[in-house]
Amino acid sequence: MNDSSSIAAIILAAGIGSRMKSRTHKVLHPIAGKPMIDHLLDSVDALAPAKSVVVVGKWREQIEQALTGRPVDFAVQEEQLGTGHAVQQAAPGLADHDGPVLLLFGDVPMVSPATMRRMVERLEQDDDPGIVVLAFEPEDTKAYGRVILGEGDRVARMVEHKDANEQERACRLCNSGMMAVQCRDLFQWLGKVGNDNAAGEYYLPDIVMIAKEEGRSPVAITAGEAEVTGINSRAELAAAEAQYQELARADAMAAGVTLRAPETVFFSHDTELGPDVVVEPHVVFGPGVKVGEGARIRAFSHLEGAIVGKDCEVGPYARLRPGAVMEQGAKVGNFVEMKKSTLGAGAKANHLTYLGDATIGAGANVGAGTITCNYDGFNKSTTHIGEGAFIGSNTSLVAPVTIGKGAIVGAGSVITSDVSVDAIAVARGDQKELPGKAASFRDRARARKGK
Amino acid sequence: MNDSSSIAAIILAAGIGSRMKSRTHKVLHPIAGKPMIDHLLDSVDALAPAKSVVVVGKWREQIEQALTGRPVDFAVQEEQLGTGHAVQQAAPGLADHDGPVLLLFGDVPMVSPATMRRMVERLEQDDDPGIVVLAFEPEDTKAYGRVILGEGDRVARMVEHKDANEQERACRLCNSGMMAVQCRDLFQWLGKVGNDNAAGEYYLPDIVMIAKEEGRSPVAITAGEAEVTGINSRAELAAAEAQYQELARADAMAAGVTLRAPETVFFSHDTELGPDVVVEPHVVFGPGVKVGEGARIRAFSHLEGAIVGKDCEVGPYARLRPGAVMEQGAKVGNFVEMKKSTLGAGAKANHLTYLGDATIGAGANVGAGTITCNYDGFNKSTTHIGEGAFIGSNTSLVAPVTIGKGAIVGAGSVITSDVSVDAIAVARGDQKELPGKAASFRDRARARKGK
Amino acid sequence: MNDSSSIAAIILAAGIGSRMKSRTHKVLHPIAGKPMIDHLLDSVDALAPAKSVVVVGKWREQIEQALTGRPVDFAVQEEQLGTGHAVQQAAPGLADHDGPVLLLFGDVPMVSPATMRRMVERLEQDDDPGIVVLAFEPEDTKAYGRVILGEGDRVARMVEHKDANEQERACRLCNSGMMAVQCRDLFQWLGKVGNDNAAGEYYLPDIVMIAKEEGRSPVAITAGEAEVTGINSRAELAAAEAQYQELARADAMAAGVTLRAPETVFFSHDTELGPDVVVEPHVVFGPGVKVGEGARIRAFSHLEGAIVGKDCEVGPYARLRPGAVMEQGAKVGNFVEMKKSTLGAGAKANHLTYLGDATIGAGANVGAGTITCNYDGFNKSTTHIGEGAFIGSNTSLVAPVTIGKGAIVGAGSVITSDVSVDAIAVARGDQKELPGKAASFRDRARARKGK
Repeated sequence: MNDSSSIAAIILAAGIGSRMKSRTHKVLHPIAGKPMIDHLLDSVDALAPAKSVVVVGKWREQIEQALTGRPVDFAVQEEQLGTGHAVQQAAPGLADHDGPVLLLFGDVPMVSPATMRRMVERLEQDDDPGIVVLAFEPEDTKAYGRVILGEGDRVARMVEHKDANEQERACRLCNSGMMAVQCRDLFQWLGKVGNDNAAGEYYLPDIVMIAKEEGRSPVAITAGEAEVTGINSRAELAAAEAQYQELARADAMAAGVTLRAPETVFFSHDTELGPDVVVEPHVVFGPGVKVGEGARIRAFSHLEGAIVGKDCEVGPYARLRPGAVMEQGAKVGNFVEMKKSTLGAGAKANHLTYLGDATIGAGANVGAGTITCNYDGFNKSTTHIGEGAFIGSNTSLVAPVTIGKGAIVGAGSVITSDVSVDAIAVARGDQKELPGKAASFRDRARARKGK
Repeated sequence: MNDSSSIAAIILAAGIGSRMKSRTHKVLHPIAGKPMIDHLLDSVDALAPAKSVVVVGKWREQIEQALTGRPVDFAVQEEQLGTGHAVQQAAPGLADHDGPVLLLFGDVPMVSPATMRRMVERLEQDDDPGIVVLAFEPEDTKAYGRVILGEGDRVARMVEHKDANEQERACRLCNSGMMAVQCRDLFQWLGKVGNDNAAGEYYLPDIVMIAKEEGRSPVAITAGEAEVTGINSRAELAAAEAQYQELARADAMAAGVTLRAPETVFFSHDTELGPDVVVEPHVVFGPGVKVGEGARIRAFSHLEGAIVGKDCEVGPYARLRPGAVMEQGAKVGNFVEMKKSTLGAGAKANHLTYLGDATIGAGANVGAGTITCNYDGFNKSTTHIGEGAFIGSNTSLVAPVTIGKGAIVGAGSVITSDVSVDAIAVARGDQKELPGKAASFRDRARARKGK
Repeated sequence: MNDSSSIAAIILAAGIGSRMKSRTHKVLHPIAGKPMIDHLLDSVDALAPAKSVVVVGKWREQIEQALTGRPVDFAVQEEQLGTGHAVQQAAPGLADHDGPVLLLFGDVPMVSPATMRRMVERLEQDDDPGIVVLAFEPEDTKAYGRVILGEGDRVARMVEHKDANEQERACRLCNSGMMAVQCRDLFQWLGKVGNDNAAGEYYLPDIVMIAKEEGRSPVAITAGEAEVTGINSRAELAAAEAQYQELARADAMAAGVTLRAPETVFFSHDTELGPDVVVEPHVVFGPGVKVGEGARIRAFSHLEGAIVGKDCEVGPYARLRPGAVMEQGAKVGNFVEMKKSTLGAGAKANHLTYLGDATIGAGANVGAGTITCNYDGFNKSTTHIGEGAFIGSNTSLVAPVTIGKGAIVGAGSVITSDVSVDAIAVARGDQKELPGKAASFRDRARARKGK
């Protein structure tokens, strides 16, 4: 294979995808928490391309903003005059390029780096086929043009489903639309593509016949349907998500993770789970989660941007938000939210608690109903709880505040000042009793209710 | 087609459905949050019938109560002597009726208005067939009688599966039991139906042969299996629910709603979601929910009787109960319950909060752990929070109470009196510290534990 | 059939299951909350065996500990020299045994007592076949050796898939590995099994040919694939779990339980639900749960070790932990956790509450945000709430504490002393207001934020 740096990629992303019925551009809709165009560009980047050109059109500012920081160029297709015309717009940006060009689609995001590499490798074989068409055998062929093979992997012709005769329709090999072409050939052939058809559009696949007329022998290689399925509607987006999740679950289980009910667990594109992690039913992993060996993620938990250490227990009903860090053996229980906070080794926050902008020392116990009051409407402040401290239930910790190592806070306290190491602090009102008054209250309340 | 007001419907609902093993009558079990008989009656009502007669038997008071307020009559079948006998009970109620009668089953609830219309239209065509049988081709034909066609759509004969010969069994067209018949014919023919069979029952389908004997030519039209499947057990109820949900999800996606994991989202019969609404995995919509464009319903949320405005964010783990109203851009976060309350535009209640019988002004911030104490055991009282107010975390708002616009309530307060506009209010105990006492407490506690 | 006490079982559990990639022995991974070897042993126990011998190897201490208290013996296979060798290790333990022996596998846990009984019964028929092989017809036969039948149920030969010819491969009857053999025969024949093969292992199935050489006629009986599927990976574990759940859901529905979305509900091996229980979507039952007739388990609830009485309502988002008892008509609402506590008839704890080590009398009302402060870091203490008492919202009940019958506790109180019958108790700080101070606070906060 050629030096990878000589590869270029053109990604077509001019169509906004009106069937999505969205105010967001089609290629920005996410799969497993990552926009589909980023899935594609991440795969392209695995080939270390010399240049990637994204062809944009309407709503291009959405794409340009979403791809800020990525090493891509943009070319603009002002009018939608067909795929051939779209690729043509990338010509100026590739004026200096010499080498293979991958022609890809922003709404066909799951094609793998391995498949891309195979396309380029086939293009560069000694028989110099000129074009490599990526083909596949879909379950339902009706929506696709056929790739009719001649000898070996040579493409005899390509024909749209509607134009195909009986025999051609019986052929199951279909055109994904993706190709690899040498840059020197691509724009020359594109120049010869006409728009003498019903739609008045310039069709990219026409270059295959043009190449043949010039004596070249375009070939087809194949990929699985899952890689080349395009996404044009929310239903297709959901199907792609389901496909991604199925693979991710299988990978996790193969790596030694127990998923009791895999079909109810949802991963992000970057979820990392160690061996012997157990994930109970109904769990959602948002982006940026790492879970250490032997940890248990209980039912109905929701994790985003969180680091869960070895042998931790999370949930049920735990919500870990970005910046949540649980050290080895820590425990976060039900109806507990944790954000930008660290729970030290073996520390526990088991019930109905909000931990925000807090550090909790090893072995500390945070009682039920504890709230770190970290926000005053404008600024966030931090709470520090020392090692081995015990925070009584239903306590409000008004940040900034520090609870010393080994200190104890009485239940129901509103703590506004720091508590010293090993001190006991209590902040609550005195209890008063009005003997027998409940009965008279009930009488009055009933009367009011009766009204 | 005849003037719609000349149509009548007879709905058979005398069988309680013993295979359901329920103390609730079969036809009252819900699909997508609505009793199955109401699904059927809503479809009947779409044809604006002159009269709908529900034939009830045992447990009829349950049905009569459930249908209170619906424009239906009831007829009582005291003994269960077969479907023909059941229909016969509706005769007095339809004594004045002249026109088509639809014969329907309370436990076959998903037949569509369009199919009902097609039945009536076919009945009223010039060849005057006398009876229109609704047939279908089930995946598994074993449970059904066959409809053997003669010329065109003419019914040659109908035969029970057990009585069918090899050739008849190969026929896939089955009898749904539903029919359209002219009222003048129906009760005349029913009068000729005998009960000379093993069960001693009067069978409704017998009228088909009687009509033929009188020189009429009954016909069959078909519907999809999904419309005509009967529900006789909890498993069949679950299958009908699954079928309903699958269609509802597809409709939502086609209308521009993102369902990341459609199979984990459950709709009610009346859920309304705007375009670009995103629904994360594991969400349940109870009856009466409307969600505006661009809102995000996060994982593990549960909504009933709630109005969610444009671009709101709900959840994860939000519970919106009847009367919850979120205005544009409002946010309800995790472990927050909202009932008969309005959250103004851009207002937030993000963590561990109960909002009942409250109005919260635009831009207000309700801190973590806030509880509106709206109930004294007898009466509910209201809480009003002004625009831009800030309620500190872990606050109890003892209703009736008003927090003025722009006011601030200190964390951990128990607010029993109104707070003025732009005031700061605090209601908490003083903090006391017992230096070094934690260690001695631990010693004593350990000793007690040791005992 | 022979007296049941003459049956013995040998369960092979020496292989740790490296494909599980676990630090837990394969046979201890749970299905429906019970280790797979316990599923198998429970089925064996249904035959009241005279003796059960578990053959263990590496990590045997894990198994021995897990099976503490079960009436099983252990035999140790130090080296893994094949299944024949493994069974041989049980010989000393069965020296005194006379009667049928079932040869079972710890990682094939779902074989039913009925199937085991059929194996023994066939073995003891008058033709004295010597060996009963348990066979099955898998969907995919590729992984299995074939059982080639001769006359009737006689086994002509058994052949590994890789050694099978075309005709043999067309045979769909496969070997499950499980057998029944008379003890007097088993160890005699095992003594003749050699290890003259590529792996140098002693193969248990070789005894079939040895028996034939001795003039016996081993037979095969069949079971469904679901019973005899082995579990060697987490994916296979998940598949077994799914299979278990599917059956459990069907059983529940057949018994009169409504599962609105069965595929989202997960049972434990011992879940008991009464008739007319309704289970909404997304519910998890841990071990030890019983739910009485007519109770409703709402969405997103999680129950373990809990008793739910007739007509109770649980959830949504209720977490019942071991020792939670709800008496008739009690109600536990959203974000409520209950542990070792009893909620009396008709009592309610509807919102954001933690009830631990508490008894709540009939008809009592526990307000939103109530926390029983039951733990001081060392010891647990109890809370008693009398009949008809009313606990105001956001109350902390510092245990040990008793709230008298009919008493009322004011919202936001921290209750540290007992409250008398019919008394009203309040324990909160006084409210202070700083007029107009919110505005100046906001100015300062904004300035700080600006920094």
